[in-house]
Amino acid sequence: MERERLLLALDFGGTKLTAGLAASGERQWRAHRVIPSPPGSNAQSDLEIMMELAGDLLVTAEVPLVKVARSHGGKGESPLLPCSSAPLLLAVGVSFGGPVDWTRGLVLLSHHVPGWENFPLRDWLQDRFGVPAAVDNDANAGALGEHRFGAGQGYDSLMYITVSTGVGGGWILNGQPWRGADGMAGEIGHTVVDPDGPLCLCGKWGCVERLASGPCIAQRAREWLEEQPGRGRILRALAGGDLNAMTARLVAQAAAQGDGLAWEALEVAAWALGVGIGNAANLVNPRCFVLGGGVTKAGQRFWEVVRRTACQTALPGVHFDIVPAALGDDAPLWGAIALAEDQIST
Amino acid sequence: MERERLLLALDFGGTKLTAGLAASGERQWRAHRVIPSPPGSNAQSDLEIMMELAGDLLVTAEVPLVKVARSHGGKGESPLLPCSSAPLLLAVGVSFGGPVDWTRGLVLLSHHVPGWENFPLRDWLQDRFGVPAAVDNDANAGALGEHRFGAGQGYDSLMYITVSTGVGGGWILNGQPWRGADGMAGEIGHTVVDPDGPLCLCGKWGCVERLASGPCIAQRAREWLEEQPGRGRILRALAGGDLNAMTARLVAQAAAQGDGLAWEALEVAAWALGVGIGNAANLVNPRCFVLGGGVTKAGQRFWEVVRRTACQTALPGVHFDIVPAALGDDAPLWGAIALAEDQIST
Repeated sequence: MERERLLLALDFGGTKLTAGLAASGERQWRAHRVIPSPPGSNAQSDLEIMMELAGDLLVTAEVPLVKVARSHGGKGESPLLPCSSAPLLLAVGVSFGGPVDWTRGLVLLSHHVPGWENFPLRDWLQDRFGVPAAVDNDANAGALGEHRFGAGQGYDSLMYITVSTGVGGGWILNGQPWRGADGMAGEIGHTVVDPDGPLCLCGKWGCVERLASGPCIAQRAREWLEEQPGRGRILRALAGGDLNAMTARLVAQAAAQGDGLAWEALEVAAWALGVGIGNAANLVNPRCFVLGGGVTKAGQRFWEVVRRTACQTALPGVHFDIVPAALGDDAPLWGAIALAEDQIST
Repeated sequence: MERERLLLALDFGGTKLTAGLAASGERQWRAHRVIPSPPGSNAQSDLEIMMELAGDLLVTAEVPLVKVARSHGGKGESPLLPCSSAPLLLAVGVSFGGPVDWTRGLVLLSHHVPGWENFPLRDWLQDRFGVPAAVDNDANAGALGEHRFGAGQGYDSLMYITVSTGVGGGWILNGQPWRGADGMAGEIGHTVVDPDGPLCLCGKWGCVERLASGPCIAQRAREWLEEQPGRGRILRALAGGDLNAMTARLVAQAAAQGDGLAWEALEVAAWALGVGIGNAANLVNPRCFVLGGGVTKAGQRFWEVVRRTACQTALPGVHFDIVPAALGDDAPLWGAIALAEDQIST
């Protein structure tokens, strides 16, 4: 009997840590665990939690823990030889929520958790697990996940865009990830679409992220409610009178129920995203844009404005589809599986 | 003695037709001819002129004209066998001033000359010359030319941008041309950088081209001179009192001589180009931008604004050089040589 060939995927997200185990070639999780990132965590503690998650998955799948044992206080290499029918871990792939030096396998920084600066995560994992590892940022991993397993299957070129707390993206060109000279390609969130727009955290005015991210939609709706006391009755009711509890989800809900102010706050986001996509289409001309993240669940009308604006912004000869992501929050984790898969096939 | 291996490059530009002959591996023209495109020309007449240019070059270089003779009224295949020491034409490359279907070698359209719609230029040339041919648009060809022979040498990824009558561009990614799903990649001229800006020919507002192209710089200066009678003394003098004779070159000249209005008209162009480049850097993260075309000769101060704006628009982790094109108007023609070269090496 041939030994089962397993791949391990790790996702260091901004708010949660996720690990998944899948058999090579399969498209469903063999085992999958997620836990919220504890408050006050740092690189060290996140790594320890992730190693526990991974260890649990591997134990469940009966993979011999030759090296992982060391991180759990074991006494070095286990003397146990894997039995010949035990499943085999072949490679580890990682999606990381922050900039990564792909070539060297370094985490450069986490935007959420301290202590990650220039951490050699790839080599650290290779040492722990004794198998090849690959580490990429979550936007690139998401693009790879949707391309290999999700809504981007069959497209030779695509841009994956996630619109939630921030707006990020990743490219597939010629069927391969395009990461850019500094691993920074895909930063559509910080392209300027309205120089007269509001100030972004990055220091510029009118970035796509400043107009289309979830927190910015909520902020805009809140400001408009404060400025226009006679409007937004439905949205006010949904927020229970507490404007500080405003979220993009409430805005989308109110818009769906006919609240004019809520729809206008959402429409700005759809417009900005549409211009950003149209500009990207003119510049790079990919065959498809795959859109994921919470904001893209804002309903049909939101999608119509995104699509219409993108098409108006793109030149007549530039053709593309705009499709919803199929893997949801799991896109980066499936991308990590794809990264692992590429380690054994190359 | 080994026979000399020659490559033929043809450039169908908006206002002129150029042909060049170079030895494979050499970086200077063996022979080179350019003539203005005659008024009222069409695809047929341009092709005839180009075949004459090419024929002259080949005769000068003593290449046996086995097939070209047919286009000059010869009686089919020449019975002459090339002597064993005669130079050999190996391939033909073409830069075309309009959209091209790269895969099928079709000219889709010329923006300047009628009759080119869906013309199979690659196959037509292969039939004429009996050697492999390749046809690309002038922006892609320019990118390839600067990458292989000009200012882009040594950069694995770059965007070439030409700013003259229009604003176009082409990509080199992973050392290879990236043409996009429809062959339309690189259209930085029609990315929107100011939705409150003036109306572009493409139907959108505030495209880079509408703010930064030569004719648009001239138009802006002309309008401002009409609206602000007390300003622009130097520019008015340079235009000889005839505002309709305004050109971007005059605006740049006046700006260099200290004319405030002229500089402001130019600065808008530099700003728009800088935002466009910064957006492209965030999206694709190439290592270099190579800038050519008449407008980029507008002087040091123009370049400073382009560079500063691009750097401010790009995220801190996104690094790139912005360098002037080295091949001038010849970039597409050298790109055509590179296209021809690739035909024999693949």
